[in-house]
Amino acid sequence: MPLLTIKDIARKCGVSVTTVSRAINNHPDINEKTKERIMQVIKEYNYIPNNSARNLKRIESNTIAVLIKGITNQFFNKMLKVFEAEIEKNKYDFLLHPVEEDENEIDVAISLEKEKKLKGIIFLGGYFSHSVDKLKYLNVPFVLSTGGFSEEVESDKYSYVMVDDFKESYKIVDYLCKLGHRRIAIISVPESSQNIGKTRLYGYKKALQDNNIPFDPALVRYKDVEDRDFFSMRYGYEVAKELLQSNVNFSAIFAISDTIAVGACKAIFDSGGKVPEDYSVAGYDGIDIAHYYNPSITTIRQPVEEIARESIRILFEKLNNNKKIEKHKIFDGELIVGQSTIPYNKKS
Amino acid sequence: MPLLTIKDIARKCGVSVTTVSRAINNHPDINEKTKERIMQVIKEYNYIPNNSARNLKRIESNTIAVLIKGITNQFFNKMLKVFEAEIEKNKYDFLLHPVEEDENEIDVAISLEKEKKLKGIIFLGGYFSHSVDKLKYLNVPFVLSTGGFSEEVESDKYSYVMVDDFKESYKIVDYLCKLGHRRIAIISVPESSQNIGKTRLYGYKKALQDNNIPFDPALVRYKDVEDRDFFSMRYGYEVAKELLQSNVNFSAIFAISDTIAVGACKAIFDSGGKVPEDYSVAGYDGIDIAHYYNPSITTIRQPVEEIARESIRILFEKLNNNKKIEKHKIFDGELIVGQSTIPYNKKS
Repeated sequence: MPLLTIKDIARKCGVSVTTVSRAINNHPDINEKTKERIMQVIKEYNYIPNNSARNLKRIESNTIAVLIKGITNQFFNKMLKVFEAEIEKNKYDFLLHPVEEDENEIDVAISLEKEKKLKGIIFLGGYFSHSVDKLKYLNVPFVLSTGGFSEEVESDKYSYVMVDDFKESYKIVDYLCKLGHRRIAIISVPESSQNIGKTRLYGYKKALQDNNIPFDPALVRYKDVEDRDFFSMRYGYEVAKELLQSNVNFSAIFAISDTIAVGACKAIFDSGGKVPEDYSVAGYDGIDIAHYYNPSITTIRQPVEEIARESIRILFEKLNNNKKIEKHKIFDGELIVGQSTIPYNKKS
Repeated sequence: MPLLTIKDIARKCGVSVTTVSRAINNHPDINEKTKERIMQVIKEYNYIPNNSARNLKRIESNTIAVLIKGITNQFFNKMLKVFEAEIEKNKYDFLLHPVEEDENEIDVAISLEKEKKLKGIIFLGGYFSHSVDKLKYLNVPFVLSTGGFSEEVESDKYSYVMVDDFKESYKIVDYLCKLGHRRIAIISVPESSQNIGKTRLYGYKKALQDNNIPFDPALVRYKDVEDRDFFSMRYGYEVAKELLQSNVNFSAIFAISDTIAVGACKAIFDSGGKVPEDYSVAGYDGIDIAHYYNPSITTIRQPVEEIARESIRILFEKLNNNKKIEKHKIFDGELIVGQSTIPYNKKS
């Protein structure tokens, strides 16, 4: 018997190809009885969803997906613009797919690749650790862009473009130490949250160590918030407020993002304090507001547009040359000294 | 002769598949000569756009596109999150498509609808005026969300969800007038830029008039910038800096977005001035930074999440009931009085 196509099945059942496809793929939007009938016919004719038909579907798509974790984070806005322009320039379609904070981006990518017949994937802002072995289920080229990963992961398994979060957070905390601060609080995110908070905390610890400052767990601040929007101004505000109300002594704050730093500054102002006179505050990322805040905020500028451009360049290289070789590009961050940090003042 | 595909036609004409598709579909954006040539080839080879292939393609898509003008504008971040969640909840696919400042969003939508077999469209942040007659080329339901349109446009031609920009800008400028300010500068955008700047300027003028304050064109400030990123902090900074360096006298600024207001405040600080002691500054939008800035910025809060939810609700209503009736929902903005505005002080 010749192989039946999905069209033949549809004709035999008196339904559309869409309906057959829904039955096969367990799509919720199908009448149960219709589904039963279709599955019966499929069984009867021994129909196997056929590869050439699948490929026919595949050729329809020319899509590069950008999977973004943290779509409300301003840090990504300028990168999105670059991705969109570069993807369009290369005659591909741009699909932006937000990933929830508690979703595993690799699982999302695996579904999406099949569903949308993707040609390539950029992971934006995710964090890769335990689930990295799942990457083998991805059949298309992908690049990790400004994400993070734990040290156990073998980096030859994937391409990435980012700054060295450990080195850069070391750099800014070391700067605070050199200003004479010894009680430096870090506003990070809960340990359960898989993101770059972890790596930035390592950098913080190492800088303290190299400056002979004992590590005090009471200075590591974070909290759980319902919306899990850890990189928001509100989050920074709430955590800093708790810190200020505690009896923990500190003279400087390292916030792991500029948005968090802004919230922390506001909490200090609202408590009657001053930045930098009473507390120095440093952020991370180098987004616009770090420069335009009052005071401007000392930060690590990430070259976001270059990172985006390089990520997409590597993706197209992999796409066009069909190479299995993984590329890695680490950009330097830049310490931007703003008005929010001054030398330690004994009276504070 | 075997049936030719659209690709074969494109190859024979030396043009892209998109161009052939445009010729076939009477799309406005195609060179007349190119179109003629393509139609000639089509006739010659007796190419018939093949329906079964069309249907096959059509069934692949279940996509709602959000066309966003101003992807770097933080104002949209929270809306995108709502759109994504609601579209997914309704079992549709979410496609985010950025539109350049100088592109006409309706033209973009017309191509995209065909290319991606869209099911519906949300226009985010666009401005509709002269090109509104082109909307008839759109065959799928669409909703205008937080955009603007000139008054000549008959609103029964489309559905929209927004705040009344005229009324809300009137509200905040009236508030400044009631504080005793009579020399109120407005930081807007170039008139050539088709966006909500125009409507907010009308609100400004009407508020002055109702408060018996003569309109002074010297107080209407804007400039052209190469990146055409008018809703950025840098834009606000640059325009305010020019204003401060001019010999135009003023005691308050109404910036047509919070990001512009932040830039304006920073320009005042950098020139040695104080907000609000020397100049009151008001913004528009109610994004996070208005609250967390130092000082917090008086603004009009737009209920962005409600606007997004209502936009998508109307779109699905149109999709599910196949109704031609257009829906309009105007949300109230809320005047949020921050620390950046105080009564007029004669000495300033």
